[in-house]
Amino acid sequence: MTHLGTKSVRLGPGAEFDVIRGFIDAAADLPLEVRVGPGDDAAVLEGGWVVSTDLSVEDVHFRRAWLTESEIGYRAAAVAISDIAAMAATPVALLVSIAAPRGGAVDIEAVHAGVRASARAVGAAVIGGDLSSSPGPLMLDVVVLGRAAWPVQRDGAKPGDQVWVTGSLGASAAAVRVWEAGEEPAPVLRSAFARPTPRVAAACCLVEHEVVDALIDVSDGLAGDAGHIAAASGVQITIEVERVPVAEAAVEALGVEGALQAALHGGEDYELCFVTDPDVVDPQYFLDRHGIRVTRVGTVSEGEGIWLESADGERQAAQRGGFDHWQGDR
Amino acid sequence: MTHLGTKSVRLGPGAEFDVIRGFIDAAADLPLEVRVGPGDDAAVLEGGWVVSTDLSVEDVHFRRAWLTESEIGYRAAAVAISDIAAMAATPVALLVSIAAPRGGAVDIEAVHAGVRASARAVGAAVIGGDLSSSPGPLMLDVVVLGRAAWPVQRDGAKPGDQVWVTGSLGASAAAVRVWEAGEEPAPVLRSAFARPTPRVAAACCLVEHEVVDALIDVSDGLAGDAGHIAAASGVQITIEVERVPVAEAAVEALGVEGALQAALHGGEDYELCFVTDPDVVDPQYFLDRHGIRVTRVGTVSEGEGIWLESADGERQAAQRGGFDHWQGDR
Repeated sequence: MTHLGTKSVRLGPGAEFDVIRGFIDAAADLPLEVRVGPGDDAAVLEGGWVVSTDLSVEDVHFRRAWLTESEIGYRAAAVAISDIAAMAATPVALLVSIAAPRGGAVDIEAVHAGVRASARAVGAAVIGGDLSSSPGPLMLDVVVLGRAAWPVQRDGAKPGDQVWVTGSLGASAAAVRVWEAGEEPAPVLRSAFARPTPRVAAACCLVEHEVVDALIDVSDGLAGDAGHIAAASGVQITIEVERVPVAEAAVEALGVEGALQAALHGGEDYELCFVTDPDVVDPQYFLDRHGIRVTRVGTVSEGEGIWLESADGERQAAQRGGFDHWQGDR
Repeated sequence: MTHLGTKSVRLGPGAEFDVIRGFIDAAADLPLEVRVGPGDDAAVLEGGWVVSTDLSVEDVHFRRAWLTESEIGYRAAAVAISDIAAMAATPVALLVSIAAPRGGAVDIEAVHAGVRASARAVGAAVIGGDLSSSPGPLMLDVVVLGRAAWPVQRDGAKPGDQVWVTGSLGASAAAVRVWEAGEEPAPVLRSAFARPTPRVAAACCLVEHEVVDALIDVSDGLAGDAGHIAAASGVQITIEVERVPVAEAAVEALGVEGALQAALHGGEDYELCFVTDPDVVDPQYFLDRHGIRVTRVGTVSEGEGIWLESADGERQAAQRGGFDHWQGDR
């Protein structure tokens, strides 16, 4: 999710964010108990509680033909948990609202079991929710509450910083592309979409090492999410495209250029994108000691927006081209 | 909402609750930071935070032909806030997820403005949310976070206690009945459905007077919600039907018997049902000093379930008869 914005937090480009910007001027003053309000991955409350909510709508965020009911629940919860990871918070509790098509076409208990499994995987529990019939699609809204000693926002990037990502990108978007072509994705691609791993432990580890100036999860594609950091921080970010860690299986499915576009614009990877002071991160250390793969993908400078720089030094403003982040039937 | 249940909290009868009971045995141990888990109106977290979530689905909870877009938002938030009132907590912050039909048929900004107005009416602010398109109905999920020094649960009723309600009942269900008959409800009925008032101040006032043993909001009809108190507390509740404060406008629309059924089984009033020690509440005091109308409607005894007792002493187990709580198209 991206929280509905206030004047104090700027969002990157995108149709959803245009609508959200429409709410900005009307935003009320925040209550004293709210430490961080709208515009980041999650809100922060007095006592270190961090809270976020995330919608998963059939035929917008997933298709029932692609996933088992348990996977639908697992994925919806994992995606929501990722917003808490993006604040470097530890998930504690989930609330899940389910609107299920009438007539028993959906096994609600299986969906709920998937949500619970996703919560358990990060040490959290489902503590509430709501249940309704739906005259249309299956919809889930998952609320995650976490605790953070030092919540990390999007707005701390400054000129000279470096931009990093965890893991590899593009596999989830490649799975969607294969499904949409009427084929069955390879297991590793399918799993990237069906059972994403929110990077809770990695975020906490990075923050404990005091190297992170700004943090976001990669839900809209690296270019889009780095764009939110750039907008919130008032800086320009240049992504060196040959450095982007593209998932091998995505290359096998889509070719080199297609997989790169999936990594930059496809989204749904739920890896972390983070910004650090220059030369403070030793990737080998994080890999050897903590099992966390981190790759430097870009730099921060004065200016605005996201620029893509190729190996031969050619630069262009990032634009969503032929590879849009999948949003289901339009 | 009713939170998904655990072994420790018992729910009254109803199809939704049968499904929820299916999750009970699988409920995980609660994290230490969770003070009150599933099964009550809201969960309670360390630091006195209270959290609840509530779905509003087009053609299940409302019809777009009945309400303006602003009212749809206002009502969805008021209904969610009512769960926080039912814990005697003060609402602080809301998160609102909106899945809106494609093609611009719904003015999302107007829906969101209604949510914000509802939040402002109780001194709370919208601090986040999510936004999606919907291939079907308009859906809202509203999360409310509140603070409570002494959250009041459903499970404190004991034999000998008295059962009370605030305000009057049946007007909202009467509005639905009139709409369903193809007519336009009287303004006072329409307003009861479109802009319900969550009883935040009344709940806090009652609890500050230390008279409340158990508390719930009337969302499913007095019989249904008193049934949740009875089930959670392991007691029997007898409702003296001639004492039930039926809304005058409901009587005008549905007749005496129809309005009584609306009050007992119709729901959506969002008044409070609470249980006290005998003879500790002076209704005149609460009316004169605090402007809160409270009416004693029943008594608590050993046993289980909800019984309805008429003026001539005839008793029968409460059963949903011809007047079901409206749940839209079936």
